[in-house]
Amino acid sequence: MSHPVVAIHAGAGDRGAGLLEQQDRHREALLRALEEARTALERGHGAVEAVQAAIVVMESFELFNAGRGSALCSDGSVEMSAALMRSSDGGAGAVAAVRHTEHPIHAAAAVMRSPQVLIVGEAADALAERAGLPQRPASYFVTERQRARLQVAGTARDHATVGAVCVDADGLLAAGTSTGGLRGQPPGRVGDCPIIGAGTWADDRVAVSCTGDGEAFVRAGVARYIGALVEQGVSVYEAAERALGEVKRLGAGGGLIAVDRSGDTALPFVTAVMPRGLWRAGGDAEVWVAD
Amino acid sequence: MSHPVVAIHAGAGDRGAGLLEQQDRHREALLRALEEARTALERGHGAVEAVQAAIVVMESFELFNAGRGSALCSDGSVEMSAALMRSSDGGAGAVAAVRHTEHPIHAAAAVMRSPQVLIVGEAADALAERAGLPQRPASYFVTERQRARLQVAGTARDHATVGAVCVDADGLLAAGTSTGGLRGQPPGRVGDCPIIGAGTWADDRVAVSCTGDGEAFVRAGVARYIGALVEQGVSVYEAAERALGEVKRLGAGGGLIAVDRSGDTALPFVTAVMPRGLWRAGGDAEVWVAD
Repeated sequence: MSHPVVAIHAGAGDRGAGLLEQQDRHREALLRALEEARTALERGHGAVEAVQAAIVVMESFELFNAGRGSALCSDGSVEMSAALMRSSDGGAGAVAAVRHTEHPIHAAAAVMRSPQVLIVGEAADALAERAGLPQRPASYFVTERQRARLQVAGTARDHATVGAVCVDADGLLAAGTSTGGLRGQPPGRVGDCPIIGAGTWADDRVAVSCTGDGEAFVRAGVARYIGALVEQGVSVYEAAERALGEVKRLGAGGGLIAVDRSGDTALPFVTAVMPRGLWRAGGDAEVWVAD
Repeated sequence: MSHPVVAIHAGAGDRGAGLLEQQDRHREALLRALEEARTALERGHGAVEAVQAAIVVMESFELFNAGRGSALCSDGSVEMSAALMRSSDGGAGAVAAVRHTEHPIHAAAAVMRSPQVLIVGEAADALAERAGLPQRPASYFVTERQRARLQVAGTARDHATVGAVCVDADGLLAAGTSTGGLRGQPPGRVGDCPIIGAGTWADDRVAVSCTGDGEAFVRAGVARYIGALVEQGVSVYEAAERALGEVKRLGAGGGLIAVDRSGDTALPFVTAVMPRGLWRAGGDAEVWVAD
C-alpha cells in the first residue's frame, strides 16, 4: 500500500512565447490536471487512469503543445503523438502522426488494449475512431497562436509537450506523454514522446515522462536508461540526473518527471523553465510555472 | 585499434516455411552479406557502412522479411521499417511504414544524416527519394511466396527480420535492423525494429540488433537495457541473456545479436532457430541456418 503521487509537466523550454504574461492560466491548467488525476484515484481508478485524466486536461488547454493548440508542422498541419505505459504487466500503447483524434492519449490507451504497441498515421486515427474516440477535422487543432508562431523564424524553443507519471495506492506505476512535436517539423517526423523507452517508460520500479529536444532523448534512450539505473539501485533523483546528463552530452536540452514505487520523485530540467506540478495524497497540489 | 567483427541475423523464429528445404540458399545469402560487410571494411569504410552493406544484401534476398519479399500486412500491402545507429556521436536514423524505398536501411541512413531521428509513412519515402534512393511501385515488394503465406492462417511465426552489428578497426560500433514487420499486421503497425532502444541500439560500448515478437521487445526496451547493463560492467553475453529474459517474462520470444567494443559477441535466441553469421578479421565467415 503506497500513498499515491502524481507528477505532471507541460514541457521544458525557454521563458518566451507569453509564458510570463500567462502564468496564471498555466497555473490554473496544471492545478486542474492534478485535480482530475486525484479525482480519478479517489474514485478507485489506478495510475493508468490518473495519468490519462491529467493529460486530457493538458491536451485541452490551448497554450500547451498537445491536442488542440499543438505546434504546427512546416506545412501548417498538426501531427500529434502520445504514449502510455503501465507497470502492472509492462503494457504500452503509442500513436504517432495522428491528425484527427481529439485526445491522442486516449488513442495511445486504445493501442495499449490492442495486441500492438505503436500505430502510426491514418491507421492510428482509424483505430481511435473504431474505439469510439471523438475525431475532429484537421483545422480544429490549428490555433491562430501557433499559426503566428510558425511564421516567426528563430523564436524561442518552447516544447510544451505534456506528460504525467503516477504511483497509485496499490504501488502500480504509469507514465504518459502527449505532444504536437516540434514547431516547423517536417510532416512525418516523430520525436521521443511515442517512443517507449525514449520519452515514456514505466516498469515495476519507476515511471518516466520526458520533454525537450526529442531527437536527443531518442538517441540517449533516456527513459529506459532511468529504468535500468533504478533497477541497479540508483535513486530516482540520481538516475534522472544521469539520464539528462546524456542529453546534455549530445548538446541538447529538456527535462523529465519521474516517480518511483516508494513515491520519491525527480523533476529535473536543463532549460530555463519546465511548467510542472506535484500532488501527494494527503497534501496540497503544488505547481511551478516560470521558476 | 580493434580487430573488426561483423555479426548478422535473419530473424528468430520456427523451423517452418521452407527453411530446411532452402538451407543452402539461406547460407549463401548470409555468407554474401558478411562478405559485403568485410569488403566495405577492407575498402576503408567504417562500421556504419559495413552494417548497411550486409543489410542491403539481406533486403535483396526474397526469402528474408525485409525489402522485397517482406511479410504482408492484413490488406496485402507491404510496409517496411529500418533503423541505423552509430557509436561515434550517438547518431541514429529510422523509418517506419515505408512502401516504396527499395532499401529501407538506406532511408534510415538518410534520416541519420538529417536533423531528425524517425520519419514515418509517405514522408519517409519522399525523404528517401530526395536523397536519390531508388523507389519502386508497391507491387515490387510483394512476392507470391508471401501472398500464399498470408492466406494460411496459423502458420509458424517466422519473423525473418534482418540485422547487423559491427565494431570496426577504430573501435567504432554500429547497429542496423530492417523488416517488413509481422505477417498479417494491421497497416500502420510499427514493431521494435525502428524504435531506437528497442530493436536497435549502438553506443560507445555495445551495438545491438533484435528480432522476434516486436511488441515485447518494445515493452522490455531490450536494446537500450543491454547498453545500460554493459555500461554497469556486465558482459555482453550476460546482458543479452538478461534482456532476452525480460522478453520471455512477457511470454514472448525472439533473439538478438550484440557486439561490444572489444569484439566479444552474443547471438542468443529463445526460438527454434535464428539464421545468423559472424565474421572476425583474420578468420573465416561462419553462418548457422537451422541450428
